[in-house]
Amino acid sequence: MFAKETYIQRRAVLKKQVGSGLLLFLGNDEQGLNYEDNAFRYRQDSTFLYYFGLSFAGLSALIDVDEDKEIIFGNELTIDDIVWMGTQPTLHEKAGRVGIAETRPASELAEYLRKAVLGGQTIHYLPPYRDEHKLKLMEWLGIPPARQEGSVPFIRAVVAQRNRKSEEEIAEIERACNVTADMHIAAMKALRPGMYEYEIVAAMDYVAEKNNCRLSFPTIATVNGQTLHNHSYHNLVKPGDLFLIDAGAEVESGYAGDMSSTIPADKTFTPRQRAVYEIQNAMHIESVKALRPGVPYMDVYDLSARVMVEGLKDLGLMRGNAEDAVREGAHALFYPHGLGHMMGLDVHDMENLGEIWVGYDGQPKSTQFGRKSQRLAIPLQPGFVHTVEPGIYFIPELIDLWRGEKKFADFINYDKVEEYRHFGGIRNEEDYLITETGARRLGKKIPLTPEEVEALR
Amino acid sequence: MFAKETYIQRRAVLKKQVGSGLLLFLGNDEQGLNYEDNAFRYRQDSTFLYYFGLSFAGLSALIDVDEDKEIIFGNELTIDDIVWMGTQPTLHEKAGRVGIAETRPASELAEYLRKAVLGGQTIHYLPPYRDEHKLKLMEWLGIPPARQEGSVPFIRAVVAQRNRKSEEEIAEIERACNVTADMHIAAMKALRPGMYEYEIVAAMDYVAEKNNCRLSFPTIATVNGQTLHNHSYHNLVKPGDLFLIDAGAEVESGYAGDMSSTIPADKTFTPRQRAVYEIQNAMHIESVKALRPGVPYMDVYDLSARVMVEGLKDLGLMRGNAEDAVREGAHALFYPHGLGHMMGLDVHDMENLGEIWVGYDGQPKSTQFGRKSQRLAIPLQPGFVHTVEPGIYFIPELIDLWRGEKKFADFINYDKVEEYRHFGGIRNEEDYLITETGARRLGKKIPLTPEEVEALR
Repeated sequence: MFAKETYIQRRAVLKKQVGSGLLLFLGNDEQGLNYEDNAFRYRQDSTFLYYFGLSFAGLSALIDVDEDKEIIFGNELTIDDIVWMGTQPTLHEKAGRVGIAETRPASELAEYLRKAVLGGQTIHYLPPYRDEHKLKLMEWLGIPPARQEGSVPFIRAVVAQRNRKSEEEIAEIERACNVTADMHIAAMKALRPGMYEYEIVAAMDYVAEKNNCRLSFPTIATVNGQTLHNHSYHNLVKPGDLFLIDAGAEVESGYAGDMSSTIPADKTFTPRQRAVYEIQNAMHIESVKALRPGVPYMDVYDLSARVMVEGLKDLGLMRGNAEDAVREGAHALFYPHGLGHMMGLDVHDMENLGEIWVGYDGQPKSTQFGRKSQRLAIPLQPGFVHTVEPGIYFIPELIDLWRGEKKFADFINYDKVEEYRHFGGIRNEEDYLITETGARRLGKKIPLTPEEVEALR
Repeated sequence: MFAKETYIQRRAVLKKQVGSGLLLFLGNDEQGLNYEDNAFRYRQDSTFLYYFGLSFAGLSALIDVDEDKEIIFGNELTIDDIVWMGTQPTLHEKAGRVGIAETRPASELAEYLRKAVLGGQTIHYLPPYRDEHKLKLMEWLGIPPARQEGSVPFIRAVVAQRNRKSEEEIAEIERACNVTADMHIAAMKALRPGMYEYEIVAAMDYVAEKNNCRLSFPTIATVNGQTLHNHSYHNLVKPGDLFLIDAGAEVESGYAGDMSSTIPADKTFTPRQRAVYEIQNAMHIESVKALRPGVPYMDVYDLSARVMVEGLKDLGLMRGNAEDAVREGAHALFYPHGLGHMMGLDVHDMENLGEIWVGYDGQPKSTQFGRKSQRLAIPLQPGFVHTVEPGIYFIPELIDLWRGEKKFADFINYDKVEEYRHFGGIRNEEDYLITETGARRLGKKIPLTPEEVEALR
């Protein structure tokens, strides 16, 4: 938790930005895994954390802009709670630590909202992403889940603040990035043919946990790097495999790190692996060089894609003009995701508020395959923290689909692509802060070049 | 997953038991942690697992007893899913592996239920424990969350089946218990003064994960064993501390282990720690000796409490007749929880269906402090799997509360109790199967006696 002045200041900026109405913040509750009392590890809502700092279940908060009131709603501990959970500060004391003087019982929130609606106040709330939020909004505001869309002025004000990280936020993110780097380095050192994927996951989680961190998202650690949504760890690692890791730590304050690395199961890359790896490295390095304030991140994405097309042309996998190929979307056969995303209290920062506000400033997104997965398009600004994570994949199902449709046959040499059918996938990822003049990598360096990777194996 | 015959047989027994109507099974969905796509690690509902074996999101199932139909509702993967998630068997193929021939799109379930209600069929469902279930029951059956109570005949039939474990279930539970034991042994070996609690948690999680297990519940690993609901790991371990661990592994099939141990931060117990530890050991050993079919587990709880009272009388902490003290509830100052609970696909097996059905066969529970926390009271039967976990604690807040009320002053020597105010807490826990003639410990042995614990330090 930061000093109380941080939270007071954040709320003051928010109030000024939204201007009027009632801002409703729904804290997260515990959620049962297989019965009510066997809960998932608790995670507070990130916007609640940002403005109110308190990380435990059972809280809601209101900022009544019209009346200039800030109230946290929640219940004080009973004597039974204290017997079972030990002595703790009261809710009122905890609220005081984030500069909130008024606390009220949770049961009074519904009535406060009812009166506000009757009094003609506008109630602003953010789009719900948990079913517990949907039930509350339905109960308190009478809005059925399908119509709980959230308030655009509230969303835009929160995004404007959270998109630009303060010095104290950057320090927390950097701590998360350092632990994240250690997780990857531990995996790089541990991986051997004959291990199961879950053994590598165990080694990475151990690093996170002994640093008092949790994971910022479910780890990807797989011999099937071409399968992008991959959260199973059953496979045996075999000689010749490429092993792709995408994993990050979250520090206690909630800030995230997120890095990816790709390593050979053997001590060295095969010549073919190395050739594709070097193209991915070039995409990464050229993208990083381009980072500075004012550059639209969509332009950096285009650059990374053009670098890939040029490289794949050298390997005989693509052909034609790189700029045309990227504009038309042919590169997405090999690079079907974006170059990166904002990162902060959420690893995909504020994804629940809508990518269109966080990464597009309300402008429409492309519907082109590949390009539509770019989560951040707007000109970079000092204080932005985002990932750089280009990738190259050979996805058999996608190859078959496109080949069957003869899609982009002018740009793609499908016969040659067949030779790489079982290649797998490569992604490397680092986290960057946009500064006044350029960009700075956050957290210690993880091996990136083939030489650096092999040196650690 | 077991062979399909297991699931076919389980459903046949259930159908016969309930006799008529429509049984609705709600599978669990993914739930977002801090935004929708950053989900908690997926856990299927245990009853769904028991009858339908499939462990992924988006499923519901119906057993139409009247029409003798069994249907799984869920969506087949789209080509987009396959591109991102890799080639997989179809839902229809997966359903076939658990003996279900009929699958339908998820969207058809609401209509099926609507027609059943119109046709006068009784819809049986189990009490919801996730907000996602509550939203579905509201949408599909029009029942508001506050009135979603579940069907008693359905609950009782499920409990009757799941309470008695089959040989193949016992083998899975024993695998979970073996990993659980290794977690405790790793912690016992690792613990040293100067470490933080979270470092011990990291060492235990590593053992679980490298065995391809997850945790069956959030680990307790604390220098404050007297705080019973304790899921924070921030404290530094100091010389002289007692360290209490309650942790378990869950194997991939969903079956749980659950053990506790208490170890000195130093290499040996102090004489005072050892004296209390030996009383707890006697409670444990006498309880285990009493396990056999036909013995009400509440009687074993009473026995364990009497053993404690006799031991605490020797230390001068209690006085008077042990049987009277336990009947009146004086022991609960030191032993405020139960002796154990059923264990299976849930670590507190079927807690979502109601303790009153699982552990009390519908009979009313005591309201006495301490005794009311006993989760299992009925006569033991072959096939029951349950924990044995007596404990002794010195809870300052509870001592002050009772002392202030002069509660049980005939039985409790509060002046002497003050000397133990900062003692902490001791619990040891093992898992037992009730056999035809007695009971068998599941999983490898973890150190229990002071000598066994000290030998590992």
